[in-house]
Amino acid sequence: MKAMRIWHGTLELDTRGFGQVLDITPQLEALVARWGVEEGNGVVFVPGSTAAVTTIEYEPGVVQDLCQALERLIPRDIPYRHDAAWGDGNGFAHVRAALVGPSLAFMVRGARLVRGTWQQFVVCDFDNRPRRRRLEVQVVGSGGGPSR
Amino acid sequence: MKAMRIWHGTLELDTRGFGQVLDITPQLEALVARWGVEEGNGVVFVPGSTAAVTTIEYEPGVVQDLCQALERLIPRDIPYRHDAAWGDGNGFAHVRAALVGPSLAFMVRGARLVRGTWQQFVVCDFDNRPRRRRLEVQVVGSGGGPSR
Amino acid sequence: MKAMRIWHGTLELDTRGFGQVLDITPQLEALVARWGVEEGNGVVFVPGSTAAVTTIEYEPGVVQDLCQALERLIPRDIPYRHDAAWGDGNGFAHVRAALVGPSLAFMVRGARLVRGTWQQFVVCDFDNRPRRRRLEVQVVGSGGGPSR
Repeated sequence: MKAMRIWHGTLELDTRGFGQVLDITPQLEALVARWGVEEGNGVVFVPGSTAAVTTIEYEPGVVQDLCQALERLIPRDIPYRHDAAWGDGNGFAHVRAALVGPSLAFMVRGARLVRGTWQQFVVCDFDNRPRRRRLEVQVVGSGGGPSR
Repeated sequence: MKAMRIWHGTLELDTRGFGQVLDITPQLEALVARWGVEEGNGVVFVPGSTAAVTTIEYEPGVVQDLCQALERLIPRDIPYRHDAAWGDGNGFAHVRAALVGPSLAFMVRGARLVRGTWQQFVVCDFDNRPRRRRLEVQVVGSGGGPSR
Repeated sequence: MKAMRIWHGTLELDTRGFGQVLDITPQLEALVARWGVEEGNGVVFVPGSTAAVTTIEYEPGVVQDLCQALERLIPRDIPYRHDAAWGDGNGFAHVRAALVGPSLAFMVRGARLVRGTWQQFVVCDFDNRPRRRRLEVQVVGSGGGPSR
């Protein structure tokens, strides 16, 4: 039985907001490789209430389809009470983020991030302005070598 | 390398149903503090199929915006087969809960629940009556002192 | 303090696609029982970008209500850029899967999968053809007997 441990790290991203979808798979896989995780349960979490995390086939068509679906379902140009009260103008972003969700549970098996070949981990920044986002990543599992 | 352990607990809530959104952040943070978690991966899970867990900026405007969006997307007053078959009248609640999701992966870093300043953990009770809800919380990680 | 360990396994499913919702609770509970998990945090993850995982009361009425809601919200018969670019005809499936989400954090307490009595773990296969799906399951926790 191998000793269990916990790793954590952050991913820093500059976004344009307005529903921009960014592929975080390369950074996530680089973290897992750098840590030397062999087997583990992980969480990727975006602090803030106007962004969300999910997976998608990261090609421009699907990404635009997702953005258009959200624009249809939770339009930017209808009245929001949040905007009436605070004047932020990003009520739509709050609702979208709450529905898609701020975190994703993932796993590492055999030193690899589990995902489909055409499935990428993405952050959607729904806010109505560019943002610097800091995502938090944590893994509980085994690996990392005897020296640590 | 610190020893890893697992904590679990429950949060009990009385809800009004009908989409009421309740802030569970204070109780969640109190659990994490009481346990003395330093680093950990956690899950908050709501047993039952008419409630869901997410995060949101917990101010009355956004909360109402979320409720109105769900009323628009999954209306209460259209026919549901669940209601035709069982007469429960809460078909809308089942669909909303399945879409928002019953659980959330979170993390503790440096003895603090990771979240944005204006981001709260909430349970949405979509059922069509008041309910007593028991949420389950579990954390795997390190901390808690040597004596336990 | 009990030693922590990690288990992983897979669930293989043949689906019909087109939004078919399959109950995976029996297989998930069989895995947890076979492993002898006493307490643990788990993840169920579906590799691929046209399927999703959630919980629902698994009775035919609710399942149909969920399918109809998704058909209303993200219709199959509107144009998708993914289809224009790749001719796959499953743009709707990608968008639905990204919104419902590819993974679910769950927990085991007292050797039981935590869930409501009428709440089942399900995979929704939104693709536009039958698929063989392989779901990945991983649990970090305690149990499994002294001999392993």
